[in-house]
Amino acid sequence: MPYVNIKITREGATAEQKALLIQGVTELLRDTLGKNPATTVVVIDEVDTDNWGIGGESVTVRRKQGQ
Amino acid sequence: MPYVNIKITREGATAEQKALLIQGVTELLRDTLGKNPATTVVVIDEVDTDNWGIGGESVTVRRKQGQ
Amino acid sequence: MPYVNIKITREGATAEQKALLIQGVTELLRDTLGKNPATTVVVIDEVDTDNWGIGGESVTVRRKQGQ
Amino acid sequence: MPYVNIKITREGATAEQKALLIQGVTELLRDTLGKNPATTVVVIDEVDTDNWGIGGESVTVRRKQGQ
Amino acid sequence: MPYVNIKITREGATAEQKALLIQGVTELLRDTLGKNPATTVVVIDEVDTDNWGIGGESVTVRRKQGQ
Amino acid sequence: MPYVNIKITREGATAEQKALLIQGVTELLRDTLGKNPATTVVVIDEVDTDNWGIGGESVTVRRKQGQ
Repeated sequence: MPYVNIKITREGATAEQKALLIQGVTELLRDTLGKNPATTVVVIDEVDTDNWGIGGESVTVRRKQGQ
Repeated sequence: MPYVNIKITREGATAEQKALLIQGVTELLRDTLGKNPATTVVVIDEVDTDNWGIGGESVTVRRKQGQ
Repeated sequence: MPYVNIKITREGATAEQKALLIQGVTELLRDTLGKNPATTVVVIDEVDTDNWGIGGESVTVRRKQGQ
Repeated sequence: MPYVNIKITREGATAEQKALLIQGVTELLRDTLGKNPATTVVVIDEVDTDNWGIGGESVTVRRKQGQ
Repeated sequence: MPYVNIKITREGATAEQKALLIQGVTELLRDTLGKNPATTVVVIDEVDTDNWGIGGESVTVRRKQGQ
Repeated sequence: MPYVNIKITREGATAEQKALLIQGVTELLRDTLGKNPATTVVVIDEVDTDNWGIGGESVTVRRKQGQ
């Protein structure tokens, strides 16, 4: 019955990559905590780089600086 | 003063349906817990079916399988 | 398959009131959007009044002022 | 190491305004709690006015009423 | 730079199990999306069974029914 | 009408520090985006160090290593 929310910057993750992420997190919760995969929910949020900040700067600015 | 976040898959909910949801949740919090509707906030997130997983699979895949 | 997160201040909600809230939100999502109750998840977070702010003040301070 | 999520209605915030918000929140956490800016993460969600409710109504409806 | 929030019911997960979960999710994001482990943040919320609902009922009630 | 959620590790923040944080974030949203303080909601979550991971390790482990 776990609920997992994964937030990443919107930088081209494919449907295949996201499917692997959903499968992997679900299996991890089964293997570490015995959680039932049938009721494990995973929601992925892709966030624009203007809207994600780290170190006081947006990721847009950091990408321009080569970080 | 409650804050409610509702996450659903993006599959065509109309503005009218979302308005009913906002109204209904606000009334429910007033009726069950005596919360003031004036300061009850409701935020609805609509999530792409590629980005929502249950049972280790994305909803996109499940919809193709008729689930 | 919806996921609902309800945040309220921790001010004595009973297990019975929370059960009514879970039931009510689940029925509302079925009635307004046709969502399946069996996979509707509701998580209630109760937050200390020191940790909840509105109008720039904590709820602890507002309660002392009679608000 | 704090994580901050800011939800606002999608009503034209510019990249410059969002950059100021990221910078300001990061500095505030350093100044009030001594948190390290390098690992402070800020995520801004802009939400459609149909999907944001307050007082039992969507912001779309409230804006039409001049609120 | 991803942020992951995992919500589970509070039913005795140990510090060791939670450490495995943190390590596993961080490695999964590196392996599937190339995300930098150094800036991957994982937050686990443990929720009382009275405060978690599925199928319109609290987990407390479901556990008593043997579910 | 913004909603802000601040997650920090539970390491002794006082009510006074949290009040300053609530006040500061509310003023920042007024100053950068013209948001109405009266309806700005701030919720602070304090998270046990066992439940917060960065770099694939819990903060509990990192604190023991002097990080």
